[in-house]
Amino acid sequence: MAQKITIFDSTLRDGAQAEGISFSVNDKIKIAQALDSLGVDYIEAGNPGSNPKDLAFFKYFAEQGGSLCHAKLVAFGSTRRKGISAADDTNVRALLDSGAGTVCIFGKSWDFHVTNILNASLDENLDMIRDTISFLKSQGKEVMFDAEHFFDGYKRNSEYALASLRAAAESGACALVLCDTNGGCFPDEVSEIVQKVSREFAVPIGIHTHNDCEMAVANSIVAVLAGATQVQGTFTGFGERCGNANLSAIIPSLQLKRGFSCIPAEAIKNLTQTARFVSEVANISLNKRAAYVGQTAFAHKGGMHIDAVEKNPSSFEHINPEEIGNARRNLMSEVSGRSTLLKKVQKVQPDLERSSKEMEGIIEKLKEQEHKGYQFEGAESSFALKIRKVLGVHVPLFELEKFKIISEDAASAASEVNSTAMLKIIVDDTDVVGDGEPIRVLAAEEGYGPVNALDKALRKALDEFYHDELQSIKLTDYKVRVLDGSDATESRVRVLIESTDGERKWSTVGVSSNVVEASWEALMDSIKFKLIMDRDSRYKVFAY
Amino acid sequence: MAQKITIFDSTLRDGAQAEGISFSVNDKIKIAQALDSLGVDYIEAGNPGSNPKDLAFFKYFAEQGGSLCHAKLVAFGSTRRKGISAADDTNVRALLDSGAGTVCIFGKSWDFHVTNILNASLDENLDMIRDTISFLKSQGKEVMFDAEHFFDGYKRNSEYALASLRAAAESGACALVLCDTNGGCFPDEVSEIVQKVSREFAVPIGIHTHNDCEMAVANSIVAVLAGATQVQGTFTGFGERCGNANLSAIIPSLQLKRGFSCIPAEAIKNLTQTARFVSEVANISLNKRAAYVGQTAFAHKGGMHIDAVEKNPSSFEHINPEEIGNARRNLMSEVSGRSTLLKKVQKVQPDLERSSKEMEGIIEKLKEQEHKGYQFEGAESSFALKIRKVLGVHVPLFELEKFKIISEDAASAASEVNSTAMLKIIVDDTDVVGDGEPIRVLAAEEGYGPVNALDKALRKALDEFYHDELQSIKLTDYKVRVLDGSDATESRVRVLIESTDGERKWSTVGVSSNVVEASWEALMDSIKFKLIMDRDSRYKVFAY
Repeated sequence: MAQKITIFDSTLRDGAQAEGISFSVNDKIKIAQALDSLGVDYIEAGNPGSNPKDLAFFKYFAEQGGSLCHAKLVAFGSTRRKGISAADDTNVRALLDSGAGTVCIFGKSWDFHVTNILNASLDENLDMIRDTISFLKSQGKEVMFDAEHFFDGYKRNSEYALASLRAAAESGACALVLCDTNGGCFPDEVSEIVQKVSREFAVPIGIHTHNDCEMAVANSIVAVLAGATQVQGTFTGFGERCGNANLSAIIPSLQLKRGFSCIPAEAIKNLTQTARFVSEVANISLNKRAAYVGQTAFAHKGGMHIDAVEKNPSSFEHINPEEIGNARRNLMSEVSGRSTLLKKVQKVQPDLERSSKEMEGIIEKLKEQEHKGYQFEGAESSFALKIRKVLGVHVPLFELEKFKIISEDAASAASEVNSTAMLKIIVDDTDVVGDGEPIRVLAAEEGYGPVNALDKALRKALDEFYHDELQSIKLTDYKVRVLDGSDATESRVRVLIESTDGERKWSTVGVSSNVVEASWEALMDSIKFKLIMDRDSRYKVFAY
Repeated sequence: MAQKITIFDSTLRDGAQAEGISFSVNDKIKIAQALDSLGVDYIEAGNPGSNPKDLAFFKYFAEQGGSLCHAKLVAFGSTRRKGISAADDTNVRALLDSGAGTVCIFGKSWDFHVTNILNASLDENLDMIRDTISFLKSQGKEVMFDAEHFFDGYKRNSEYALASLRAAAESGACALVLCDTNGGCFPDEVSEIVQKVSREFAVPIGIHTHNDCEMAVANSIVAVLAGATQVQGTFTGFGERCGNANLSAIIPSLQLKRGFSCIPAEAIKNLTQTARFVSEVANISLNKRAAYVGQTAFAHKGGMHIDAVEKNPSSFEHINPEEIGNARRNLMSEVSGRSTLLKKVQKVQPDLERSSKEMEGIIEKLKEQEHKGYQFEGAESSFALKIRKVLGVHVPLFELEKFKIISEDAASAASEVNSTAMLKIIVDDTDVVGDGEPIRVLAAEEGYGPVNALDKALRKALDEFYHDELQSIKLTDYKVRVLDGSDATESRVRVLIESTDGERKWSTVGVSSNVVEASWEALMDSIKFKLIMDRDSRYKVFAY
């Protein structure tokens, strides 16, 4: 049987230290659930002591039944402060209050940090480690120990670095995690030190690396080969400075190529989708060249390479991209491995063959739309609407004839309600009246900005036909992503909207160089999708 | 004396295989000169046999006196085709015609590729290697041998893989370069195989890796530790699929941390600038998190980290960023405490005490703005403008009186240029004329969406006063972030704009529930900041 490696994800904690990332509570819940579905073992979700927002997340998560099937939720915090007991330390208490069953405590293992940064004596630091872990154990918590700057410390004073681990092990820590906090270590050093340390302790050894030399992935992997059995990292490598060890590269390397078991075998095909989902929620574009999960990870440009891959994929591919849910792309024949989407299409049209003309039409449509900047991985409901046209089952319900917006600066408008939208829509009579006459409706509304005004005007125009459905639809998320920032204000933007009717959620997308137009497209799709889902329940597979 | 490692740059050849990269001849010349200044040993600039444009570059470069001080120019090509002599092979002839003094020949070393992709016999492939190298040597060229798929081949048939190297060595190759062409190898494998191979040959061994497992840098480094003396890679890691080994990470790691000599000691401080320049010419945004040279590589966000770095930089930095021409950045955010901010303010107003009333006013302002959703960690220039008001040194330069925007759906506008902006600004006479009369300017423009139209109208209105400054300002990035998606279209958005005048970059921010208003604020700040920085150079601390 494959040796199990424990996967400890810190996207929501150490990943949130990255410049430009700021997760809302709702973002955190969505990411935690995605990581749980993938099958990671631990999800470190925040530092409740130093950040009240993180405490709010833990409480909300517990109360709102944000339930996890597989993963354990972890709260992160430091050893108690100098000169007080662990029970009196507010940060330690916050860890208890979080309700998380597992706690990860970081402490100093580099003597220089103890004396020069913490201004504590070397013995006192060991006491702080012991007291904190013992106290949390006595309160029923599972406790891990992150030995901060372990490698830098070990290189200078290995005795003391080991003493810090011993203090943690003797106090009941269930894992001793060796951290390359500054990200400056080399694989040969990591390998040698992990080998020595794992021989000394019966407690499982973990590895936590940073990417300052672009070697965090390699350092994590050589640590496992040297005896570590837990890997801490983040999805797609988010983190402070150059980021943390990238779990989306480490997991497939260990599991598919070195025979370890990191996540359930059947889950690894969702790796690409998970990495892209996490990036989308974090609103950070995933590096195209990202190992395994990037858009170009299996893209072949060189003619000779393409020929060779046609003859035998293993000639220029180190693994089969489908194993991890990615797809081969080459410029001569764009093969699409979008099996997830195609499977959903078959749920709506079970008679559809993979090789049918309709399916080809859908793949064509998908490629054409992706080329324009659409991305349906986070917006399957818009995709569902688009395939209805290809399948010839499209019922318009309503269409835009035109809109016009007037928007002023807030001071001139003397209010934050500074935009007015006028629109004219044609409502499909077959759905609402059935007398064969198209119905034109003109409506105007004002709002906070042009998108809000359009949203309100559209609801007003449709109200007499779809009152109940519209009342139930609430937009729960609105995201704007600039597709190519280098064209500045001419750039195309992608708008993602998430909606709910209280029972289900669904997401829609719009793309344009005009943010108002892109928002309009996503808004219109959101309402249309709800109406279709209510009339044909098979479409619920495109909601969640 | 430090052991010399030969640096072989393939940004212009293997790097050009990356999706989205297409270098003009002029781009190539600029990059070659930048790499030469940095002191790399070889610059592989193209494959003249397979690509006529590359041949044109070599000729142009030679004729136009694109002279290099340090580096040798290399032409890349394959072994001769089956069944003809090297002298009769047009690709081999193209290598001679290129005029490059050094040639890098790639050939097969994996038996499977010989028999199944090349459809040649194993002996014939060895003949092809021998003939091609001998012929080029007889024509006075320095010849290197890239053993394609060497590691995959060695793992399956080490005898044959070694035979291919032997054929090259016996024919006069000056370096045997072991390639991990598919990027699937692990550091332990690379280390072991390079050790074995380098024991067998007197000819120098090189390493050429790809990043498909995010381990290309580590694999190159362990290869050097195992005996390789040449490293092939590209700047910032450009290349097909997941890219090539990233020289901008490998060079500083080997030179500053392991005592090898890769480039001249005095040149390494230009590393960051070179990496950014190459990205700029390639028109690919450099990954912010890039090791050593990225914008956030030495950026600290966590409060505890910032405090520790203040006490001693080595506490959270693996090297001094100035050694490689990068800089420490302390991000301003709620988690960082206030010390970062105060330091920068003190650079502008050195007499300001920490406890002064002005400083309190600044901190108040900061808190108030952060509460509204501003985030200055990525937009220090907007912060600089705000503190000028608190300090009483504010000169308005120009202010908005009002704007109005009309925007239509694209179909009605019958064009993607679907928005018109009208605006009226008051230009500060003291700066531009000085006669005490405020100058009102009205301008209108149309554009792709309302923001683009406003941007153009503002530039038009200011043109007569600030023509030269406006010409130099280019917006390089535009980002929109929804602050709390759950209010849907009523949500507040934060717009971040990054600008450059060719010398420096700066970032500005705007917040509003109207995306147009938020964009306007950031746009206006961008131009104001440039004008102020030009008039008071102390403000450059808020740019980068």
